Amino acid sequence: MTGLSLNQETIKQWSLPELAKGCVAAEVRGVGLWRAPVQEYGPEAAGRLLRDAGLTVTSLCRGGFFTASDAGERTAALEDNRRAIDEAVAVGTDVLVLVSGGLPAGSRDLHGARERIADALAELAPYARERGVRLAIEPLHPMYASDRCVVSTLAQALDLAERFPADAVGVVVDTYHLWWDDTIAAQIARAGERIAAFQLADWVTPLPEGVLLGRGQLGDGSVDFRWFREQVEAAGYTGWTEVEIFNPGLWARDGAEVLGEIIERYRTVL
Amino acid sequence: MTGLSLNQETIKQWSLPELAKGCVAAEVRGVGLWRAPVQEYGPEAAGRLLRDAGLTVTSLCRGGFFTASDAGERTAALEDNRRAIDEAVAVGTDVLVLVSGGLPAGSRDLHGARERIADALAELAPYARERGVRLAIEPLHPMYASDRCVVSTLAQALDLAERFPADAVGVVVDTYHLWWDDTIAAQIARAGERIAAFQLADWVTPLPEGVLLGRGQLGDGSVDFRWFREQVEAAGYTGWTEVEIFNPGLWARDGAEVLGEIIERYRTVL
Repeated sequence: MTGLSLNQETIKQWSLPELAKGCVAAEVRGVGLWRAPVQEYGPEAAGRLLRDAGLTVTSLCRGGFFTASDAGERTAALEDNRRAIDEAVAVGTDVLVLVSGGLPAGSRDLHGARERIADALAELAPYARERGVRLAIEPLHPMYASDRCVVSTLAQALDLAERFPADAVGVVVDTYHLWWDDTIAAQIARAGERIAAFQLADWVTPLPEGVLLGRGQLGDGSVDFRWFREQVEAAGYTGWTEVEIFNPGLWARDGAEVLGEIIERYRTVL
Repeated sequence: MTGLSLNQETIKQWSLPELAKGCVAAEVRGVGLWRAPVQEYGPEAAGRLLRDAGLTVTSLCRGGFFTASDAGERTAALEDNRRAIDEAVAVGTDVLVLVSGGLPAGSRDLHGARERIADALAELAPYARERGVRLAIEPLHPMYASDRCVVSTLAQALDLAERFPADAVGVVVDTYHLWWDDTIAAQIARAGERIAAFQLADWVTPLPEGVLLGRGQLGDGSVDFRWFREQVEAAGYTGWTEVEIFNPGLWARDGAEVLGEIIERYRTVL
């Protein structure tokens, strides 16, 4: 499937070797990775495995969590992000997705948290750029604003990214997080060359407790995927389209069957 | 408590007579009502009960659900909203809160749904205005966009409201729905005299399944209430401050105790 990348969390029942084998068998040429399984397998070994299979690593999830106000936590977060950049290099991707962090415990200062993200980007962007890795700020749905990411809209992500060179700091356009926003067409156009990744999941309800694992299979929900693709293409994006669905229903099934369904849906909804 | 209004859903274990008695005992002078308990008690009788107790009815929840594309459903919704306006008159409030409706089943057309809301407002606004009732569009948190309300930001609510005279169509500023939005200060200033109601609940996580009943007691979460009050006051709002919390933990407790806690928190956080 031209342009389709499978984010590994979508079929997390697969080990990295199974992921490589399964994608090759299904003629999917790109994969998005997560740090925990990559660390477990070894970043260099993971990079070699996927490269040898002819796969492109389209992104690594995730750096970020920049909002701590405590100095020690802040230093630790920056160190961890430098490791994440190194891991991105090791697996062979030029995109590190950033989940920027929520409010520190007891804080109600959204503005302060967002400014600390800018400070962290200023520290990390040169390190990343020297290594050929672009930091990609991912706006998360506003329902995650308090505990995961105070960057809730593409406009906010761009307000942060535009303080830095476009090849150093980009943004992620993920349909699950952004579909509801009536200003999204204008913001995608504004993003232009800043779009570092385009991710797909559908919006379905009712949301599960904790609202983390309720993403829907493409076509099952409210997202107009074709419209989104037209917007990112009109903005000049020519990169991969990554399917990233967190859903226990998909994790309970046979991985190859799930990937077959994703390919079928991808053809239909896009 | 000057300016404090108790939305009855916050202590829904109370009957209407208990609500009247409980508020008087706690020196709370305003109440917000919901249609179902009002209909059960009888709208005129409810109005008389609360008036006789010296209470002001600060709002009635809720009209709306304007997004059906089916003609029959649409007609039924308009009829139901005329009844809601009549009930607002009967209970003696000039504010009818509108939850505008989500996407019709199978639809992905957010723009179309929002335009149908505008059409419905055009039909209902004269009827409401003749009766001294202001329609108050409530933007709901984006996590409700698909199934409850495609109006997700105060900017969207104002885009709709501003098509009509300010005394006919206003907006609701509810901290629970709007706290995450970094443009909210500018939008509250823009709203000005359109602010028909100011409602409080705190944002707490983890969200429960279905995300309807997870609102937090004032002070337990991420909302900076004092900041919000300063914004609505700067915009010229001089009306009531209504506490509207949906939380099974509060419903399981003694109503008078809950109201006492709300008053205490209200003093602290505002």
